[in-house]
Amino acid sequence: MKDKSELISYDDIVAAQQIIKNRLHRTPLVESSYLGGLAGVKLFFKLELFQKTGSFKPRGVFNKLHTLDDKEKQKGVISLSAGNHAQSLAWAASQSNIKSTIVMPDTAAESKVKATIGYGGKVVPVKGNLLDTCLTIQKEQDLIMIHPFDDPLIIAGQGTIGIEIIEDLPDVNMVIAGIGGGGLIAGISSAIKAKKPVVKIIGVEPDGASAMNQSLKRGEPVHLKTTNTIADGLAAPFAGHHTLAHVKEHVDQVVTISDDEILIAMRLIFERCKVTAEPAAAATLAALLSGKINIPKKSKVVCVLSGGNVDMARLKTLL
Amino acid sequence: MKDKSELISYDDIVAAQQIIKNRLHRTPLVESSYLGGLAGVKLFFKLELFQKTGSFKPRGVFNKLHTLDDKEKQKGVISLSAGNHAQSLAWAASQSNIKSTIVMPDTAAESKVKATIGYGGKVVPVKGNLLDTCLTIQKEQDLIMIHPFDDPLIIAGQGTIGIEIIEDLPDVNMVIAGIGGGGLIAGISSAIKAKKPVVKIIGVEPDGASAMNQSLKRGEPVHLKTTNTIADGLAAPFAGHHTLAHVKEHVDQVVTISDDEILIAMRLIFERCKVTAEPAAAATLAALLSGKINIPKKSKVVCVLSGGNVDMARLKTLL
Repeated sequence: MKDKSELISYDDIVAAQQIIKNRLHRTPLVESSYLGGLAGVKLFFKLELFQKTGSFKPRGVFNKLHTLDDKEKQKGVISLSAGNHAQSLAWAASQSNIKSTIVMPDTAAESKVKATIGYGGKVVPVKGNLLDTCLTIQKEQDLIMIHPFDDPLIIAGQGTIGIEIIEDLPDVNMVIAGIGGGGLIAGISSAIKAKKPVVKIIGVEPDGASAMNQSLKRGEPVHLKTTNTIADGLAAPFAGHHTLAHVKEHVDQVVTISDDEILIAMRLIFERCKVTAEPAAAATLAALLSGKINIPKKSKVVCVLSGGNVDMARLKTLL
Repeated sequence: MKDKSELISYDDIVAAQQIIKNRLHRTPLVESSYLGGLAGVKLFFKLELFQKTGSFKPRGVFNKLHTLDDKEKQKGVISLSAGNHAQSLAWAASQSNIKSTIVMPDTAAESKVKATIGYGGKVVPVKGNLLDTCLTIQKEQDLIMIHPFDDPLIIAGQGTIGIEIIEDLPDVNMVIAGIGGGGLIAGISSAIKAKKPVVKIIGVEPDGASAMNQSLKRGEPVHLKTTNTIADGLAAPFAGHHTLAHVKEHVDQVVTISDDEILIAMRLIFERCKVTAEPAAAATLAALLSGKINIPKKSKVVCVLSGGNVDMARLKTLL
């Protein structure tokens, strides 16, 4: 990566693939003919909820941690997250004997806090602005910041999903992925457009947390004052500088959907596919079923099920 | 198959594989390092809950239906089942334009009855003995009986799971599968012992429905007066003549476990693996964690997750 503003290349993603390949799962792609039938397409789910720690996040984190030198590793790392990034950073750092500190909202699900601690992370619960607290601790303790999404190395790591999709379904026509901060779709779209520019890449945001959509309209990263969605994995209150640049270049459409649409999709996936898609993951099916995407019949569509981390107590109320 | 009492051969299973291969999913095998760690082994799940209709059952059914001649297909088929076989028969028969009738207990889960009807099956709800009613209707209407498990063609179809396991994990040391009537384990063990006789095959039954265990002790198929388990998929009240013969020949051990052990395993799979294993499927992990299986550390173990059909309302009470 020569320049921070430069888009990542396919080679960056291949390099990431080499780094993660013996540490993480190569997740399966499975077809659901019933749910595909509802949308008139051939539908495949990329099961990132089977990834280590229950989401796609460790792909990027491992790729980033790999670039730290021994001195940096010795210092330890810090980040901010309400859930999936927290767990993946704590776990991946432990794998490399790196200490990790994660600033989490004091409202974070108990199971996610417990899992983060269980993986060896130090959790700092915070009311209010996570980023301010995170940067303060980082400076005070001289830690290395691992951004949850706005980093070319994180983006390249998430891009490995795109390589796997093309390997498993070479004639894919469309890929749908959720957008929180945008790291996932920035990576996937970079991989796929490099090899198959004709494949449509569709992003999905909840109505109540559409920072990327607003950033695209504004032409610069927008920070939301509040977010309101059941999809905590898509509730990042801002788009990144790097992620916005990739989305502008590679993503064909960003649709927004309601929480009700997400819940319906979540139940459908649960009942028909026997997997626990967290709301952020189910949002991709919700987008497909929303009628907002223009898609020829019988197209081959991949919905990325980005994670499956839902509290059991919460799940009972959602289903 | 020359003789009804003969054990099925590896070639019978390969033939079944050819018949089902473009109609059914080749299900993934995924590792769970966390759950494996609990048992001190390398643990893989064979995800038959991703199979069409949500369980392994259509493998055998398709293989059986394929042997019917046009006249038999014209007559239509009949069977008895509380759930997974019902759904798979209704679905597979519809695929071949065959009419199906399924005798189900009047206590069967509403979702399973609805799914069976949705797949095109005619459901006859019955209080009491399913088999008597099934045989009466079969004679009256001159239908073709498709036994849920005790048929060499059904067994050969289920055996295709064994071929897939060996292909995906050639150095597997042990396979654990549930036993209802015994069709699943009869097939899998036949496939695996033919190619890798050193691989241990372990069967699992609930304490409250241990017909196979009792049949092994008695040396002949035992009929239970009642069964009592949350694992409806393992609650067949009798072992089959054919299935018992295969289990005697190929299965190394049959362990019985409690419903409480099944529930703990079900929750673990749900939380850690993000899949909805029905109780009959979770029983395999329960057996692994029960301490009743003698297994060297770091062995490669496959637990077959046979199905994922649980009512959402029921699931909420189980989790």
